Amino acid sequence: MLSIDLNCDMGEGFSVYSIGNDDQVMPFITSANVACGFHASDPSNMWKTVKLAARNGVGIGAHPSYPDLVGFGRRAMDATLDEISADVTFQIGALSAFCRREGVPLRHVKAHGAMYNKAVDALPVAKALAQAIKAVDAELVMVCLSNSAMVTAAKEVGVPYVEEVFADRAYTHEGKLVPRSREGAVLHDPDIIAQRVLKMVRDKTVISIDGAEIPLKADTICVHGDSAGAFEMIKAIRKTLEAGNVALKAFGK
Amino acid sequence: MLSIDLNCDMGEGFSVYSIGNDDQVMPFITSANVACGFHASDPSNMWKTVKLAARNGVGIGAHPSYPDLVGFGRRAMDATLDEISADVTFQIGALSAFCRREGVPLRHVKAHGAMYNKAVDALPVAKALAQAIKAVDAELVMVCLSNSAMVTAAKEVGVPYVEEVFADRAYTHEGKLVPRSREGAVLHDPDIIAQRVLKMVRDKTVISIDGAEIPLKADTICVHGDSAGAFEMIKAIRKTLEAGNVALKAFGK
Amino acid sequence: MLSIDLNCDMGEGFSVYSIGNDDQVMPFITSANVACGFHASDPSNMWKTVKLAARNGVGIGAHPSYPDLVGFGRRAMDATLDEISADVTFQIGALSAFCRREGVPLRHVKAHGAMYNKAVDALPVAKALAQAIKAVDAELVMVCLSNSAMVTAAKEVGVPYVEEVFADRAYTHEGKLVPRSREGAVLHDPDIIAQRVLKMVRDKTVISIDGAEIPLKADTICVHGDSAGAFEMIKAIRKTLEAGNVALKAFGK
Amino acid sequence: MLSIDLNCDMGEGFSVYSIGNDDQVMPFITSANVACGFHASDPSNMWKTVKLAARNGVGIGAHPSYPDLVGFGRRAMDATLDEISADVTFQIGALSAFCRREGVPLRHVKAHGAMYNKAVDALPVAKALAQAIKAVDAELVMVCLSNSAMVTAAKEVGVPYVEEVFADRAYTHEGKLVPRSREGAVLHDPDIIAQRVLKMVRDKTVISIDGAEIPLKADTICVHGDSAGAFEMIKAIRKTLEAGNVALKAFGK
Repeated sequence: MLSIDLNCDMGEGFSVYSIGNDDQVMPFITSANVACGFHASDPSNMWKTVKLAARNGVGIGAHPSYPDLVGFGRRAMDATLDEISADVTFQIGALSAFCRREGVPLRHVKAHGAMYNKAVDALPVAKALAQAIKAVDAELVMVCLSNSAMVTAAKEVGVPYVEEVFADRAYTHEGKLVPRSREGAVLHDPDIIAQRVLKMVRDKTVISIDGAEIPLKADTICVHGDSAGAFEMIKAIRKTLEAGNVALKAFGK
Repeated sequence: MLSIDLNCDMGEGFSVYSIGNDDQVMPFITSANVACGFHASDPSNMWKTVKLAARNGVGIGAHPSYPDLVGFGRRAMDATLDEISADVTFQIGALSAFCRREGVPLRHVKAHGAMYNKAVDALPVAKALAQAIKAVDAELVMVCLSNSAMVTAAKEVGVPYVEEVFADRAYTHEGKLVPRSREGAVLHDPDIIAQRVLKMVRDKTVISIDGAEIPLKADTICVHGDSAGAFEMIKAIRKTLEAGNVALKAFGK
Repeated sequence: MLSIDLNCDMGEGFSVYSIGNDDQVMPFITSANVACGFHASDPSNMWKTVKLAARNGVGIGAHPSYPDLVGFGRRAMDATLDEISADVTFQIGALSAFCRREGVPLRHVKAHGAMYNKAVDALPVAKALAQAIKAVDAELVMVCLSNSAMVTAAKEVGVPYVEEVFADRAYTHEGKLVPRSREGAVLHDPDIIAQRVLKMVRDKTVISIDGAEIPLKADTICVHGDSAGAFEMIKAIRKTLEAGNVALKAFGK
Repeated sequence: MLSIDLNCDMGEGFSVYSIGNDDQVMPFITSANVACGFHASDPSNMWKTVKLAARNGVGIGAHPSYPDLVGFGRRAMDATLDEISADVTFQIGALSAFCRREGVPLRHVKAHGAMYNKAVDALPVAKALAQAIKAVDAELVMVCLSNSAMVTAAKEVGVPYVEEVFADRAYTHEGKLVPRSREGAVLHDPDIIAQRVLKMVRDKTVISIDGAEIPLKADTICVHGDSAGAFEMIKAIRKTLEAGNVALKAFGK
């Protein structure tokens, strides 16, 4: 039976602030990318999120970022490779301690926001990320945007990886994400999105923005949980996948 | 042959700032309490400090604090036990990742500043600390002020611990530290201090501020490296201990 | 015609996080205590909040806190009087610049959370606060809990002040707030609360928790806007006051 | 009599950390660019620095930065123009409150590190900076790198400005700073540097890295105080200027 993973950013509250609907969304996903205090969250929120993920049997990953709480990690920073390496190491370690407390493994690492975007194109950054992951724990899985420098980096560094695709994003003819600034870059209809996801999993292809059927490797689907609409999308995807006999399962399980 | 451990706070720089003389002091101590970003340090400085400790074969410990960079962790905060527990877990984890990168064990945890002072007297805080340590890694050693609530907590929680004494501090008749505000609380003469330390190790006693010889358990001696005078003291202690046939050795080795 | 001021904490979002319903609440209050980045908010959120207050003709005040974003300024800290003075000065200044940009005056200062609570009882802290306010701008009004050390401090230091009461809190026979831990400390029925407020303004008295009618000076009423229930309370208070021929007006106007 | 201003970054300590030798350097300069907590400093250090500058009769300026304590404000960040504007407003305001406390004017603003470098080339950033300065206080002077987008911005926005040159940096034929990465970009000999400065002030020219005498407008000379060598340089410059009958005087006095 075919299976696929749904990953979602979780634990992005901070202090007294909450964002998203983690309690509601967690049961519907299979992998959680947990914020580590650099773009969002703090020790108490991290602990709470790890407990919630553990209770739901969801695979737990670190979601490291540039140190930019005020900008939610969305602002590119000219950090050196050594700084990125140190920052990622720190964040993986911090989260791993909560996993050890709760008796669940830390299983993957997915960069957040501006750091993710940088690693998509900049091989040296992607390699710094891959090396940090491997150096901390050689069994950690790196979540890489399909068809990006991240995949190259994971291969070169020799770190286990999965390729991720975005459920609600258009793809270019070359299998890259259409930039958000371009019209049609973001899809909104839950049913259309769910059908695209099913096709990605079953046929390993997607219809590009210019109408061609192109190959796309999808080990995990990135979904969002931070709005009512986003949650509807997750439910639609799950329903369509289950109807299509695709199992929802965390990668590596 | 008798042996004793010398522990010292290390890695308390931050950003472009340095403090102390880590490069100079590290070869003279046997255990380093490494700042974890809450009262001092940042990922890059933590990494550098772990490398330096590893090169010198020094035992590495986490030195967690309240979140108070501006106050260097010296200001008491009304944090809840859960917050303390989460903060300590986070910091141990963050440091442990640098240890894993460098292939050296994280071996102990010693609370910093106001958190240390709180745990000296407040058993619930000491137990929250002990529980966090044990929950992250049951082999981690808790560094406890001799004759304090920390020791009680370590025993009750069942976490390995060592008792520490201060080389340059006067003791009361009851074996407690004389508060810094009292005259004579801090000793300054390196030779007198060194002789006291030798006595603590050999006879397991100290002359209290009121002139009595009182029992004192010393598994590790806390020394400071943040001034020229402090460094002289470390050298005097080492010299006196070696002359007295006491080996300098990290605890647990 | 009698008049009274309604003050409310505003601008307590941070980064991408929002809290409360500032847009909705602002038109219903007459004074806004604007967070200054130490317990909540950041430069962009402060600017937005000052603009919103200015558009609504609401009196603007600084709402300084201990530096504790993670704890939302609710945790007491052993800061020195000089540190408190510096922190308050910094925060007043930062907010005042946004007021100058928007062409509106900064008119008052009300301490937040743990700093407020400290200044209620600890005269030296209350005086440090009063002195900082006066030193930055001698026309700034200090918002003081009625019947507290703050009032004493404002008088001794010679800073303009107003006395505030809480709409939804019970009072002791001595005119002090009943601690939240005690049953009956917090009132919930909007109509009862509104009637109490009207009585405070008209008769300058309140019925204490033990049933006596006691004097209470009320220059401004503290209300909350961070929940649906809180907003209902504000509306009930306004309606009752207006029906009772009490004008809603910022103090000092 | 000719006169010139010497400006220097001051107050770049943080928490318990100090950097530079402010006490020693302050009497030798005429303008201090005071860190405002975003790349260095905190309220207590800002207050101390303003007091020190006031005691020495030195002109006080704000030295705003991107929010990057860990990177000392040296890392470029993709902040929006509105974020830069808000950050600069906040920092000017915070510092101005300490000036008001000490009864001295805040007189200028000079961007720090990566923000400065950005404003050298990026006119929109330079204009955002100029607009923030003007909006807070129309009499504040913007310190602009001579021959850069900052000057254009100050003119277009209509904010008072001075042009600054670097004592120890080589200039291109076009009057731009030679990038630090190029050999010969930084000068080290205090006497040569002092003679260059005298020529800049007297002849309003400098010998470029390719040997030509080119025009250069110098209202203020940027010097550094963070090392023993830097302090020697300041003393050499002062001595040479005084011998050359050039008065040292803060701009705008």
